[in-house]
Amino acid sequence: MSLNHGVASLSDDRFEYHLDRLEEWLRFPSVSADSGYRSDVMACAAYTARRLEEIGAAVTLTETPGFPVVIGKVATDPSKPTVLIYGHYDVQPPDPLGLWETPPFEPTRRQGQIYARGVSDDKGQIYCHMAAVEELLKQGPLPVNVIFLIEGEEEIGSPNLVPFVEAHKTDLQATVALVSDTPMIAKDRPSLCTSLRGLIYFELHLRVLSGDLHSGQHGGTVPNAIHSLVSLISKLKDDDGIVQIPGFYDEVRPLSAEQIQSLEDLPFNEVEYCKTLGAQKLVGEPGFHPYARRWYRPTLDVNGIWGGYTGEGSKTVIPAVASCKVSMRLVADQNPDVMIDRVKSYLATICPVGLSVTVKEPGAMPARVATDHPAVRAAARGLETAFGVKPVFQGEGGTIPIVAEFKRILGLDTVLMGLNLPDDGIHAPNERMSLANIRSGIVASMAFMQEYSN
Amino acid sequence: MSLNHGVASLSDDRFEYHLDRLEEWLRFPSVSADSGYRSDVMACAAYTARRLEEIGAAVTLTETPGFPVVIGKVATDPSKPTVLIYGHYDVQPPDPLGLWETPPFEPTRRQGQIYARGVSDDKGQIYCHMAAVEELLKQGPLPVNVIFLIEGEEEIGSPNLVPFVEAHKTDLQATVALVSDTPMIAKDRPSLCTSLRGLIYFELHLRVLSGDLHSGQHGGTVPNAIHSLVSLISKLKDDDGIVQIPGFYDEVRPLSAEQIQSLEDLPFNEVEYCKTLGAQKLVGEPGFHPYARRWYRPTLDVNGIWGGYTGEGSKTVIPAVASCKVSMRLVADQNPDVMIDRVKSYLATICPVGLSVTVKEPGAMPARVATDHPAVRAAARGLETAFGVKPVFQGEGGTIPIVAEFKRILGLDTVLMGLNLPDDGIHAPNERMSLANIRSGIVASMAFMQEYSN
Repeated sequence: MSLNHGVASLSDDRFEYHLDRLEEWLRFPSVSADSGYRSDVMACAAYTARRLEEIGAAVTLTETPGFPVVIGKVATDPSKPTVLIYGHYDVQPPDPLGLWETPPFEPTRRQGQIYARGVSDDKGQIYCHMAAVEELLKQGPLPVNVIFLIEGEEEIGSPNLVPFVEAHKTDLQATVALVSDTPMIAKDRPSLCTSLRGLIYFELHLRVLSGDLHSGQHGGTVPNAIHSLVSLISKLKDDDGIVQIPGFYDEVRPLSAEQIQSLEDLPFNEVEYCKTLGAQKLVGEPGFHPYARRWYRPTLDVNGIWGGYTGEGSKTVIPAVASCKVSMRLVADQNPDVMIDRVKSYLATICPVGLSVTVKEPGAMPARVATDHPAVRAAARGLETAFGVKPVFQGEGGTIPIVAEFKRILGLDTVLMGLNLPDDGIHAPNERMSLANIRSGIVASMAFMQEYSN
Repeated sequence: MSLNHGVASLSDDRFEYHLDRLEEWLRFPSVSADSGYRSDVMACAAYTARRLEEIGAAVTLTETPGFPVVIGKVATDPSKPTVLIYGHYDVQPPDPLGLWETPPFEPTRRQGQIYARGVSDDKGQIYCHMAAVEELLKQGPLPVNVIFLIEGEEEIGSPNLVPFVEAHKTDLQATVALVSDTPMIAKDRPSLCTSLRGLIYFELHLRVLSGDLHSGQHGGTVPNAIHSLVSLISKLKDDDGIVQIPGFYDEVRPLSAEQIQSLEDLPFNEVEYCKTLGAQKLVGEPGFHPYARRWYRPTLDVNGIWGGYTGEGSKTVIPAVASCKVSMRLVADQNPDVMIDRVKSYLATICPVGLSVTVKEPGAMPARVATDHPAVRAAARGLETAFGVKPVFQGEGGTIPIVAEFKRILGLDTVLMGLNLPDDGIHAPNERMSLANIRSGIVASMAFMQEYSN
């Protein structure tokens, strides 16, 4: 059992105080993707630094070629574990503005929610940990050491974060990382995420002729780049969704009986899911639970395709060139570099001439945290304290590239403690976070730090 | 045998005279597709009318909602056959201007060619018939009646031509139509085209989700519109190019032994053809000569495809919607309406939900002229007189929709007497027509009229 150094609870007054502070932060339109907001993002970075100082952290704000990284250190007791809490102060663009019921940068409380751009992704979630530290420091010494690492470029792919972490390796020494940037599985159903999928993204350009030809004059004799690309794509994945690239599944871990059982126990309603998404039916590998297909199985999707004449009206062209963008979601223990080699050699076999494969950016490694990691167990008890129910373990189909980088550069496992809800409208109009989740989030973070202190 | 009413030949002086007249016509930038040239197109129509009067025709210029149609009638002897000669005074846009060696609307003679936009498509070809009439009238009464029908909207799909022909049915009574808007099969190899393919053009829009989804969060469970469309396209045509739509080939006439033999006799070099087009190899139905596949077999080509994210960089989207444009070239005796019904019912079978099929414009009927038609035989003798070699019979893979309309509205077969060459650069920079072909074209037209006169 853990020793509690204080009480994980929050008075109404203190909760109001924290909501006011959070709303101050939310008023900064810190949109990193739009250079028109540049000064707002810079002002938000400065506010973040000031606020961390206010709660008792030793703060450094470091300029990068893009937006600053803010570090705030609280306590440096070598006898205590150290939690590196990562989050971001930048937000998605608020467009389309017309669909917001209240202005995106005027946080508004109604029906038990705060509505504001960035409240759920990610200011509200990271704020829970800032509030937790402030509250715990009022009770005495912090039960753990904390390093806040808050960047301003997450929504534009964190171009400067990895170099920053590499350059500040010593400064960022910790025993575990904590990221709250994934949702709970459902309302009142806290969850801990123990795996993230990796990612490879590449483009295919296929040329079969020097130039476009007239489909009347040449139709029937010459290759058509669209048909050739279609034939190629149809050889990447069969109609069941099983990827045909040799070796694609070689390193994929089979699901344990325990994992399979825990998936069955999770809330999932296929009819409801299809209805919400407007899908006739689900697709994917037969014999796997939908959650298994989303979290623990690799996938391949064509994300975009273009070729020939795509304007108004008709043009009877036989296209010389056709292209597509393809992404693959990887799972532990698949390696992006190995996978891209397999992709390339398969493509060379099925389409030896005229095809170019362009890998657009470095692949993201998949990530995995064992459920018996001490920090994961502490987080589970923290969530149970706050929500009154044991959290479930889940995977996540998407990618948070920094998680694999924390492992690679700092040797750290990451606790993925999601505090928002799947329908909070992140990246969409009327983004929101429930007051109840913010309150429980603060309490869960306090309890986690207490639980993890020994 | 025919009775010659005059001599089919042309003095150097008269040839110079005609080249000067043709160049006057070529100086009008009669670009129908670009409203910036509107007054030039109108001026060109007026010039066309004046020039037809000059050669001895009774001319009417009729306004349409677009550009005028010019009719010029020469001779109306009820004892003689009547040739309806169709052509167009409008031209393609000259872009890209930077690739022209001399300005497109300043006709320039060099290396045995006239370079100018529209010289080959179609002013130079139709002018051969105007010159032929002028020359024959100098020798005596015209051996046939001639009706010139010269429109100004061919390069924008002739939107007002069919209504015009329907409204002027009585005025356009003839015994045969003559169109010079297709090329000879090769230099010094005159040919007569006896078939044109028809055309259907439609778009497919496939929706499988209400909106785009994140490929990380949902990849592995939800349908992807691009993969669904790819699967659908791969069911339209097999890798050999054989169309899979039930009934697609039902009305297609098998090639006669004579047709097969005549195709074998035509000049065709597969290696050269591939090299010119930058193709690795030819595709298409096994067992058919490339000319048979281009002229006498129907085809299906996807002309454009688009879906998902097609911008810069990467976006990991599962697309809700994907679309493509498809054209089918039809041959006698395929009917566009019947074919589109077959397409729709096949698509309903292979993709019952989420697909919409939009037929963008009325289909064009394929057309066919028997090689033993008296006017075709007269044209063959005329070409032999002019070029000193018997013409070959060929098909044409493209579509000239008015040819089927002449049959439908006026009951006329059409002689397709191509006078330009396949490499004259129509629709491209440095369009040209050889002086030799213009001269032979005038002589061929004179000889044709003499041969057809009885």
